[in-house]
Amino acid sequence: MKPNTFLPSCPMPHADTERIQLAHGEGARLTRRLIREELLAAFANPFLNPLADAATLPELGGRLVMTTDSSVVSPLFFPGGDIGLLAVHGAINDLAVSGADPMYLSIAMILEEGLPIETLRRIIRSVKNAADACGVSIVTGDTKVVPRGAADQIFICTTGIGRLRPDADLGVQRVRPGDKILISGTIGDHGLAILSAREGLDLGNQLGSDTAPLHHLVANLLESGADVHFLRDPTRGGVAGVLHELVEQSALAIRIEEAALPVSPCARGACELLGLDPLHIANEGKLVAVVGAESAGAALNALRYQLLGNQAAIIGDVIASPSAEVLLANRFGQVRIIDEPSGAPLPRIC
Amino acid sequence: MKPNTFLPSCPMPHADTERIQLAHGEGARLTRRLIREELLAAFANPFLNPLADAATLPELGGRLVMTTDSSVVSPLFFPGGDIGLLAVHGAINDLAVSGADPMYLSIAMILEEGLPIETLRRIIRSVKNAADACGVSIVTGDTKVVPRGAADQIFICTTGIGRLRPDADLGVQRVRPGDKILISGTIGDHGLAILSAREGLDLGNQLGSDTAPLHHLVANLLESGADVHFLRDPTRGGVAGVLHELVEQSALAIRIEEAALPVSPCARGACELLGLDPLHIANEGKLVAVVGAESAGAALNALRYQLLGNQAAIIGDVIASPSAEVLLANRFGQVRIIDEPSGAPLPRIC
Repeated sequence: MKPNTFLPSCPMPHADTERIQLAHGEGARLTRRLIREELLAAFANPFLNPLADAATLPELGGRLVMTTDSSVVSPLFFPGGDIGLLAVHGAINDLAVSGADPMYLSIAMILEEGLPIETLRRIIRSVKNAADACGVSIVTGDTKVVPRGAADQIFICTTGIGRLRPDADLGVQRVRPGDKILISGTIGDHGLAILSAREGLDLGNQLGSDTAPLHHLVANLLESGADVHFLRDPTRGGVAGVLHELVEQSALAIRIEEAALPVSPCARGACELLGLDPLHIANEGKLVAVVGAESAGAALNALRYQLLGNQAAIIGDVIASPSAEVLLANRFGQVRIIDEPSGAPLPRIC
Repeated sequence: MKPNTFLPSCPMPHADTERIQLAHGEGARLTRRLIREELLAAFANPFLNPLADAATLPELGGRLVMTTDSSVVSPLFFPGGDIGLLAVHGAINDLAVSGADPMYLSIAMILEEGLPIETLRRIIRSVKNAADACGVSIVTGDTKVVPRGAADQIFICTTGIGRLRPDADLGVQRVRPGDKILISGTIGDHGLAILSAREGLDLGNQLGSDTAPLHHLVANLLESGADVHFLRDPTRGGVAGVLHELVEQSALAIRIEEAALPVSPCARGACELLGLDPLHIANEGKLVAVVGAESAGAALNALRYQLLGNQAAIIGDVIASPSAEVLLANRFGQVRIIDEPSGAPLPRIC
């Protein structure tokens, strides 16, 4: 007789063992089991294995660079990525644009009671795969559990440690009128992917997050010998946010050529449909670079040499005035001031 | 004519400016204003001031120690402390018990839409005061805002970086039968303070959290020349949690003398009233030290020399068997096995 496929053929697991319980956060046996069976099993390395309160690492042999980032994205899984990839890439990219080679990560997770353990496992696998691909170790972590309703499924805070590259000399103070502005590829993909996943919009099935680690791209750019003055990854606030921050801090201005902005046809269509400006939409795998004018060609070549940068473009110039303004020139030469959006946030995109 | 005291004498502030809005998290102008006016104003230091995506720090000149910790305590303010103090002391103490001198902190905050800005300011002041008192700089940070109901007011993730002290040689592998176990002061105060604040219990007005930074106490202990084998701060899971972790990892056993445990009269009364065991209750400013037997006196003196350790006590011994068990001997010499609590968690105590 065939087994009844409508009834489970083995005893139902006790529901509680399939979901995060408050006891997973109380610091006793269940916490240690969670850490050992789920986290240590995935991330094992000599620094994490002792499960001490902190990781003892080798001497760094260079200047230390430190960054921290919380991931609160909703939904947790979306076209092109998930919260685990974002959590790793966010820290890697903040180190990369600061001119550092990423080395170590810490992971602190806030879990909502009732989170399916299988969801947690998927995220942990994703974190592990991303960390492995980036060549960094997860050396320490923390797990807290809050009651149902006190958080939304899972938040992840990653902190990254890197070593400053000797060839990096980056900062707003190095930006000069005449510098060229480059972007490493198409813009707006991440924010649109989140939006379409969250709202159930059909924006075309080619629309996926661009989440990716930028450290190899940055290394290639710096090793090219191009005179790189400033790097930033245009996440929340989009490319416009990065440019506004730059002009505010430097008291210079920026002029962007609209026709030079790489936007995928799919993203362009979605933006037109929704009335959004791709300059304002978050990216998770793009690099804005400001380089000396005479280096612009070398920098562009260095970016395009890698798959991740093969659609890189020179998109504009740093100019002296009007101070603290970002200008956009359309293909007819008409220039308008790009303001920052406000009052219409798209929350929880990263 | 006297102004009508029932009407405001100046225009009412727009309610939105008094509370965290989603736009504070979108990465544009409001985010930058929040960071500049609230965070940078409080934490200003040469590493944070550039507001880059990462902090570029000097060479460390020693082995790097890294720890991370999320604070999700509820309520945010409680007798003896608040979430800001816990967030700083948690990272400091994890570094301290790993034998490191704390140097740098990062702060990542997840804010719930609607959080009063004044609440955030109080917490920021608290973080700043604690960091100043501990001699550490807050060098980088991150701020995310989630919609109402997706988090509970504020969660803080702190990551700490320290330099390993050359005089520290700590680890479970150094623990031997015959070693003495010390505690730096009274136990159970933090968990009871949270419980009384949360449940509105009147457990006596002397009951306050013991939250405190332990790095000076640890430095004093290590500099005393005592043969220190293992250090841990008994937070979640209490002293029992630390001891269970130790016996599980070492396959040794521990015997604690109940009469030697320092418990304040107020905490003892509260535990008796509530049927709780002070060994299971969280602390946030206590140190468990395992030292070679011949060093126990010197270690005790070193702890007692500081105000924070003036109630330190030798509370038990490491013994060879029964493997992986923690035993408690009462004042009549009767011995019982101390189990870990489970199924009755007190969530969100740190």
